[in-house]
Amino acid sequence: MKNYVIMILLLAVTAWTVVAQDTPPAVVEDFKPSVINQPGKQFPQVNSEGRVRAQISAPEAHRVQLDISAVKYDLVKDDKGVWTGESAPQDEGFHYYQLWVDGAAVPDPGSLYFYGASRWGSGVEIPAKDQDFYAMKDVPHGQVREIHYFGKSSNSMRRCFVYTPPGYDQNLNTRYPVLYLQHGGGEDETGWSNQGRANLIMDNLIAEGKATPFIIVMDNGSWAMPRMERPAQQAAPPQGERPRQGERPAGFRSMAGFAEGFSKTLLEDIIPMIDANFRTLADQPHRAMAGLSMGGMQTRAITLANPEVFSHVGMFSGGSYSLEDVNNAPGFKEKIKFLFVSFGSRELENRRAGFGGDPRENTEALKNAGMNTHFYVSPQTAHEWQTWRRSLYEFAQRIFK
Amino acid sequence: MKNYVIMILLLAVTAWTVVAQDTPPAVVEDFKPSVINQPGKQFPQVNSEGRVRAQISAPEAHRVQLDISAVKYDLVKDDKGVWTGESAPQDEGFHYYQLWVDGAAVPDPGSLYFYGASRWGSGVEIPAKDQDFYAMKDVPHGQVREIHYFGKSSNSMRRCFVYTPPGYDQNLNTRYPVLYLQHGGGEDETGWSNQGRANLIMDNLIAEGKATPFIIVMDNGSWAMPRMERPAQQAAPPQGERPRQGERPAGFRSMAGFAEGFSKTLLEDIIPMIDANFRTLADQPHRAMAGLSMGGMQTRAITLANPEVFSHVGMFSGGSYSLEDVNNAPGFKEKIKFLFVSFGSRELENRRAGFGGDPRENTEALKNAGMNTHFYVSPQTAHEWQTWRRSLYEFAQRIFK
Repeated sequence: MKNYVIMILLLAVTAWTVVAQDTPPAVVEDFKPSVINQPGKQFPQVNSEGRVRAQISAPEAHRVQLDISAVKYDLVKDDKGVWTGESAPQDEGFHYYQLWVDGAAVPDPGSLYFYGASRWGSGVEIPAKDQDFYAMKDVPHGQVREIHYFGKSSNSMRRCFVYTPPGYDQNLNTRYPVLYLQHGGGEDETGWSNQGRANLIMDNLIAEGKATPFIIVMDNGSWAMPRMERPAQQAAPPQGERPRQGERPAGFRSMAGFAEGFSKTLLEDIIPMIDANFRTLADQPHRAMAGLSMGGMQTRAITLANPEVFSHVGMFSGGSYSLEDVNNAPGFKEKIKFLFVSFGSRELENRRAGFGGDPRENTEALKNAGMNTHFYVSPQTAHEWQTWRRSLYEFAQRIFK
Repeated sequence: MKNYVIMILLLAVTAWTVVAQDTPPAVVEDFKPSVINQPGKQFPQVNSEGRVRAQISAPEAHRVQLDISAVKYDLVKDDKGVWTGESAPQDEGFHYYQLWVDGAAVPDPGSLYFYGASRWGSGVEIPAKDQDFYAMKDVPHGQVREIHYFGKSSNSMRRCFVYTPPGYDQNLNTRYPVLYLQHGGGEDETGWSNQGRANLIMDNLIAEGKATPFIIVMDNGSWAMPRMERPAQQAAPPQGERPRQGERPAGFRSMAGFAEGFSKTLLEDIIPMIDANFRTLADQPHRAMAGLSMGGMQTRAITLANPEVFSHVGMFSGGSYSLEDVNNAPGFKEKIKFLFVSFGSRELENRRAGFGGDPRENTEALKNAGMNTHFYVSPQTAHEWQTWRRSLYEFAQRIFK
């Protein structure tokens, strides 16, 4: 009898699998233009399932694909030469993507462009249940300021973006804490305000009284290369001084070397420049560092080596601090007032065991050792910007209190 | 004898023409990557003749073209599926362009992107003999600030960029004059700093003591539509509130109506917001307006109707003020302290007679009528950003003196 039941169950599962394979689930026809399309552009669109529908006119092409979350979806041509097609459902939040037209990888002419994967490319926004926290609202807004300055350690002009909170230009006797906030690998100093909406997250938190107003500095942690010639608001190294294609930038050898190079830039160029030009509270208790992915690894290396510089630390999808890390870093345990570690839930599910140790257990061990830690998991998101928007939202409410 | 000489000359010219047609001029092989390429990208390249060479991998394509200055140039495929080809020589300065891959118009994945022609697309920079005036240098730099504010006249969140000169955050007792500087048709509030390099032009002028430091406000003159949802640093109207594709935005009926709509936004929203949030000299003697092309036409309409608001006026490639215009605008002749009109030399060559009158003659007539005017012609440039960079450079040295 028991075997009989199991056999029926197996047959049912098999039948369901066959049906599922033969008839792909119907696409829900409630597509709307992505909110980060270029003005007036109707595609890409997103539906209530989180599918992305792309469309492009390419009358002479014989193959066009939508390439998102590492999967390529074939588009279908109509009799006017317009290609249309959609992806499987995507997680909530921001995703990079591109189109392939007869073997050429190109940005979608319909979307706005964002710097990631070491190129300016297309982005699409899947509406999220919690999108209110990064929405543009009629609340007092801070400013995002583009700053050009000379970096002695790299002997070059550099660029960063600085968020100043609402009231910064009115409250001239107020000095502010500072968060140094780093992007991920293949991204740059534009990421946290363009994809991350760091300024809107802060404006909304401050309007609700949930965060202490502070300055955010978003600089380029990728490498210290000269960048004299470039237009404002986008970065381009000068010709003749950039590494050849496929060549690693000077000094890039390992993650340790990578963090070391940026450490010098941060400590010797960026922080002194910010303290000289903004009304900062220029001491350790009012200085934080956080970063995502590669920026999180840089945050770990730099704060472990310099606990007299930073008091609040955030590591988003970049690993964790082990008890051994902390025990080997003199002063870290005593001087760091708050340590925040976060991941997307899908990252934890997919994580290989043992890569730097389990981050939740590591963070718990630090709490047990007496540190003020917080471990945050972003629901139903992967190694993507929605995880990092939420991480900043959670982190920002807990620092400089 | 005379006829004989002429015949020989004619034959020589004919022979030369035939040779020129049969053997196109050799391309000079000194191409270098454009200085506004994406980091690490080797193409597009530019040679000493001003030719643009594009390259893209498209192994399955059967036709790829470079589309620049309204001409399409065929690229040639190599055995690896990489397409390469170059344009005729281009004028010095910035040019928009795009690629066509089997009938799809797409941005070049190698270049940075700029908003023009009503889309974010590729740009290329032809080195110019006078490029030093807009180069990034190790001089004191002002800031370009991204500002979000609520516009009552449009009942929507708006964005503008504000250039504050070097020292603005240090000289807290100093108040500054303000220039309201408008982009052209199909462009937006990012144009003057991205393509125009207005901030670098000002930084360099101020460092050389050639310009009085002033604030520049770069807002969106295109139309007053709600724009609640968009990432920082790029503009995108929200879904559901944008006009349908091909539909003119509400209120767009004529250039007069166009200027009228922006006039209300400028006078009722932008200027009060700027005077409330920046240390401005908030009076007519310290307020200027200038614009390029459509922005020049808006400048003319708005300053003719409101000479009590602005004292210094610049019109770049946007027509001119006729004596009749001025005579019909009460107070304009007396209140406007400086009136600047400019064009690219190629625009004047190609200009249809009678379109608003000859701009040089018009401007001369105003000078003869007692106004302080300046007419500037940018050598060897057309209706392009190099004309407008030079126009700003000339204009900025002559205002608020």
